[in-house]
Amino acid sequence: MRCVLFLDTKVSASVRVNALEQNQSMFLWLTVIYSATLFLSQGLTMNTATSDEGMWLFNDLPRERLLDAYGFDPSQEWIDHLSRSSVRFNSGGSASFISPTGLVLTNHHVGADTLAKLSTEEHNLLENGFLARTHADELKAPDLELNQLLSLEDVTDLVQKKIHASMTPTEALAARRETIAQIEKQSLDATGLRSNVITLYGGARYHLYRFRKYTDVRLVWAPESAIAFFGGDADNFEYPRFCLDACIFRVWESGKPAQVNDFLTWSSDDAADGELVFVSGNPGRTNRIYTAAALKQMRDVQMPYTINNLRRQEILLQQFSLRSVESARRARDDLFGVQNSRKARFGMLAGLQDPQLLKAKQESETDLLEKLAADEKYASLVPAWHSVAESAARRTLLQGKGVGLSSRLFGIAHWIVQMVQEDQKPSGSRLPEFADAGRESMLLQLYSEAPIHADLDEVLLGDSIAKMVELRGGDDPLCQNILGEMSPGERASTLITGTTLGDVAVRRKLVASGLDGINASKDPLIEFALLVDPEIRRFRTLFDELDEQDKQAYAHIAKGIFAIRGTSTYPDATFSLRLAYGTVASYEQDGKTIPAWTTFEGILEHERIHADQPHYTLPESWKKAFSNLHGSTPFNFVCTADIIGGNSGSPVVNRKGQLVGLIFDGNIQSLTSNVLYSSRQARAVAVASRGLLEALSVVYKADHIVQEMQVAAPEAAR
Amino acid sequence: MRCVLFLDTKVSASVRVNALEQNQSMFLWLTVIYSATLFLSQGLTMNTATSDEGMWLFNDLPRERLLDAYGFDPSQEWIDHLSRSSVRFNSGGSASFISPTGLVLTNHHVGADTLAKLSTEEHNLLENGFLARTHADELKAPDLELNQLLSLEDVTDLVQKKIHASMTPTEALAARRETIAQIEKQSLDATGLRSNVITLYGGARYHLYRFRKYTDVRLVWAPESAIAFFGGDADNFEYPRFCLDACIFRVWESGKPAQVNDFLTWSSDDAADGELVFVSGNPGRTNRIYTAAALKQMRDVQMPYTINNLRRQEILLQQFSLRSVESARRARDDLFGVQNSRKARFGMLAGLQDPQLLKAKQESETDLLEKLAADEKYASLVPAWHSVAESAARRTLLQGKGVGLSSRLFGIAHWIVQMVQEDQKPSGSRLPEFADAGRESMLLQLYSEAPIHADLDEVLLGDSIAKMVELRGGDDPLCQNILGEMSPGERASTLITGTTLGDVAVRRKLVASGLDGINASKDPLIEFALLVDPEIRRFRTLFDELDEQDKQAYAHIAKGIFAIRGTSTYPDATFSLRLAYGTVASYEQDGKTIPAWTTFEGILEHERIHADQPHYTLPESWKKAFSNLHGSTPFNFVCTADIIGGNSGSPVVNRKGQLVGLIFDGNIQSLTSNVLYSSRQARAVAVASRGLLEALSVVYKADHIVQEMQVAAPEAAR
Repeated sequence: MRCVLFLDTKVSASVRVNALEQNQSMFLWLTVIYSATLFLSQGLTMNTATSDEGMWLFNDLPRERLLDAYGFDPSQEWIDHLSRSSVRFNSGGSASFISPTGLVLTNHHVGADTLAKLSTEEHNLLENGFLARTHADELKAPDLELNQLLSLEDVTDLVQKKIHASMTPTEALAARRETIAQIEKQSLDATGLRSNVITLYGGARYHLYRFRKYTDVRLVWAPESAIAFFGGDADNFEYPRFCLDACIFRVWESGKPAQVNDFLTWSSDDAADGELVFVSGNPGRTNRIYTAAALKQMRDVQMPYTINNLRRQEILLQQFSLRSVESARRARDDLFGVQNSRKARFGMLAGLQDPQLLKAKQESETDLLEKLAADEKYASLVPAWHSVAESAARRTLLQGKGVGLSSRLFGIAHWIVQMVQEDQKPSGSRLPEFADAGRESMLLQLYSEAPIHADLDEVLLGDSIAKMVELRGGDDPLCQNILGEMSPGERASTLITGTTLGDVAVRRKLVASGLDGINASKDPLIEFALLVDPEIRRFRTLFDELDEQDKQAYAHIAKGIFAIRGTSTYPDATFSLRLAYGTVASYEQDGKTIPAWTTFEGILEHERIHADQPHYTLPESWKKAFSNLHGSTPFNFVCTADIIGGNSGSPVVNRKGQLVGLIFDGNIQSLTSNVLYSSRQARAVAVASRGLLEALSVVYKADHIVQEMQVAAPEAAR
Repeated sequence: MRCVLFLDTKVSASVRVNALEQNQSMFLWLTVIYSATLFLSQGLTMNTATSDEGMWLFNDLPRERLLDAYGFDPSQEWIDHLSRSSVRFNSGGSASFISPTGLVLTNHHVGADTLAKLSTEEHNLLENGFLARTHADELKAPDLELNQLLSLEDVTDLVQKKIHASMTPTEALAARRETIAQIEKQSLDATGLRSNVITLYGGARYHLYRFRKYTDVRLVWAPESAIAFFGGDADNFEYPRFCLDACIFRVWESGKPAQVNDFLTWSSDDAADGELVFVSGNPGRTNRIYTAAALKQMRDVQMPYTINNLRRQEILLQQFSLRSVESARRARDDLFGVQNSRKARFGMLAGLQDPQLLKAKQESETDLLEKLAADEKYASLVPAWHSVAESAARRTLLQGKGVGLSSRLFGIAHWIVQMVQEDQKPSGSRLPEFADAGRESMLLQLYSEAPIHADLDEVLLGDSIAKMVELRGGDDPLCQNILGEMSPGERASTLITGTTLGDVAVRRKLVASGLDGINASKDPLIEFALLVDPEIRRFRTLFDELDEQDKQAYAHIAKGIFAIRGTSTYPDATFSLRLAYGTVASYEQDGKTIPAWTTFEGILEHERIHADQPHYTLPESWKKAFSNLHGSTPFNFVCTADIIGGNSGSPVVNRKGQLVGLIFDGNIQSLTSNVLYSSRQARAVAVASRGLLEALSVVYKADHIVQEMQVAAPEAAR
């Protein structure tokens, strides 16, 4: 499921760059081996302590387990090199440097957002691919930011010392925000690096991450959708698979290809069956620490609500796509993202609805609580579970009642309004996404020249106003204020037709005009944003306070788990850099062994079986070149590494730290890994490095790229 | 919108034949000119008394209005002939007799259900069409029942005399059911005709309808989907249109083509622009009498819930279709129905969300209530509006909380269980669908040999169990009972894999085994039906009592409206025979005139504009024959007649009672006509008779069919 791997933050279609960081503070909790006591429904396999579970912090790797299970003890140099060769895409994926001159390897579906933005009606790069023959041909992405993690530092004490038990959630929230904003700003000023304080272990730990930021990112190569997504939505989540889900960018600095010191080289050999491999990337979000009450709220309320929404957007985008070929092109990337998310959430919900999963969780929790309650050192931690249950109940009451408007232009309008308002306050008192430290990254998005299709945006806005009317009821005063005498569709039409925010110069001018300028603006979308902003803020505060309540509770819960179950832990995913490990391994499904590998020659058979179905036709370039490919070259493979959405584009390396693959998906059995990992059937799916190199060389005649990379053995690239 | 025209009762995928009649008593209310005081949002056009509004009872036609507006005064013979030439499809559409030897003309999409049932993996009639060259070639539909209305009789006094003001809703419901069952049974015994008491004017009137029933119905001709649904979902709801949405069946009796005395002949001329035309058919359901409170409940609760469900089924069926070409074939008819319904409901909801529509309704209602309250003769009617509001509020609390399981095999299991249980009671005390009078029609469905695709059924059942878990919550005791240790998908798999109800002989045997047999059955679906039936019955009772409460309230409301606004009325649609009228008329859209007609030559241009888009490719038969067609022959046309879902397949006739067209759709502007009619932009869309005849003759070489029909002028059929 690319869906699980590709962070679906952009689904909101609002342009909040900082959504990732926001989500971190809002939803991401501590993970511990705790979840290893859960059973998998299908086989009752218990994860053992030696399983390949875990998305580990680079500064806290499970050295003992690696040594015990695999006899592997990575050097600090190995660790630092892999970490610095890893890259995060702000659009929601992972990647790696693969040449000294700044080439970056990621998935086609991670690059798709940029491919769509660089496409026009005449040149559909997302569909037809792209290859730059020279540096001058490389196409600059309008708003891509790549982050390379340079350092991390534990700032827990700094963050926590301002928080006192006597504070209300509101006070604690404000104090924490102010401290974090200060730390980030000081770090930025001191180092010039993008600086983010990341909440780990649900609030028990705070780390300051410093990133080198690349904002001049150019497209070098992308294959056709037909091979990147061979098998389409039918094969998505399935394995075996035949996808060249890869593309290559380059980071530039000062008008030249950037020089990078750390980059991955390619292994001359395929990874062998059973071989230990590592995945270095940015898993987005897991909920393995969630209490049973929180999981039930997710099962009964949050997940069904989210999936309904995704279905709604999917149908809407499909309908829009039917208007014309050009409409379909405009909606393609959004539609792909929505379908991907829908499928991933569907898998998560299916897991939560499996009675055995929750039963095991509940039993494990009951056991833990009994032990805590029986020990006077820890009995005070027990109320934390009640606190989570109470906040879950309050979340249920709020679900869907807020203001959720899917429109890029509205997102821009609202962003401008909030930014100008927040800028009246000192940095530490603002909503965190408007603090000084993140300003540059934010403006990159706000002033992006990426095309916004007004027709699509109008449809999205109209539908989301209609949805708001559905959820709040047509008699709701805010809805009535929004609509006046118009239907949702008519209102959206007047707003999108009337706004001039499509023009970046207008955005800059509005921001410069300050609060008076905004309040006096006659732009209908700015007026509209001013109308709905108080309600958006009201809900934001309600949720922020629930998050704060949970943060405090999960800090206690983590303490309780450490106390009873030990401290060998990794934190829940936070879209920050982690190392996962596992082995290349086949698995059993319905009594059949699914081999770990597919090869080029398997494509033709797969195409034949699915003749007459859409998305099973090789692009022309492959048909032409196929006879020159080696049929036995590995194309895709699977391993047991513990990954999730956000890991898309992560490099897979061997013990030598050499590239053997490129993560792009997980199989359908891995879908419950947001709450539970199992190595029995769940697999991460990767493009094999040899298949990728051979395709680059033979199909795309891109030997200049292959040569630029330091390929270990020339015969691999032929 | 075929969706509006094609009754979407089969969406439930349960096999309740009597759903139509059930719905009649449950949801269909009186319509009066009342709604003519509403405004249409887009143009504030007020419907005048001379507008073409109305779905009129054949025994209560608006003779004065026809005479005033069009100088037309139909003879009783004209009326009787048209009425007897009209046919109702139990699968949810309308039709007409078109030859003395039983040929029946309806829409391809009305026949689609049967086309799908007659198809196999090798012979896809739904996709590729069909033509019987001889009587022996005609294909018997497995479970189609056609009804020809022979008489109607006012039985209001009989039905009402057992109901007293002192009764509780439960008592009134039981008394009414018993009386109706008696009337129907007596009529059946006396005449041998299918006899249904239909609730009209929301409970103010009860009519006994007697139908001749045809259950040996054979397929004679169907075109390819590609031309029946040319333009696909993109063009659906739009006009102009180029669809040959027609197919032809034949009714048989005693192993021979049936002799019918009343059938329509074909006009030699096209209807002219502005010409008066009539539509005789079975509109399914309108809600024009609904109070503002009921409409708001529809707007905020019922309609959003229904549409979410349809989106859910649409995505599910799409996903299933991706499995293989054969899977797509199996899901095609369901998917079409779901998409159609989703679009129709979407239009209805959009209308309800238009503030002007509800404002006008509210103002009109306030005015009416003030006048009633001021008159002591009528003041006692006012509480009826409160009663509807109160029942609407209770409906909201129940929405989605019941047991809704979409599976044909489950539907059969549950049907058997309920039938055997109900058969322990006297006919008049049973749930109405199990009363004696309707038994034969019911058994036709229950014992249908139509194929049931277990793989699709399993997916539908699994998803609907999952939905139930979502809506009731995973901790709900019934859900926990259903699931045991299994996930929804696993439970569905064991149920569908384990049942033998796919075999009709098993069904017969189970029914014959009686209550003891059912209770002892080890068929997992029968056990499952027994498990969930008590909760289904609990909700059924709750809704039946709310319906009874509404029935009594709307009878008062109708009285109030008659008192203040006069009595020139037609009842809300009840899937019973009605006559609508109007003129062939172009309309304005976005400042452009949309002509009333399309022609054959327009197809090619339409195909050209939409090249590269799916569903805009003519089938081979048309490509081959196109040069022999007359480019100027009318293909589709629109008129102002007041139609809605269920009218699909209705004949359009001229003053002479001759066929000029075949209704198959309404344009997008007609979507709000469930609550409001306007002749400004709303149009019914029809296949022109000349286009149909020419296609039959030239494209399909079906001159034997054309000759069998009594075509008025030979040149029309060439």
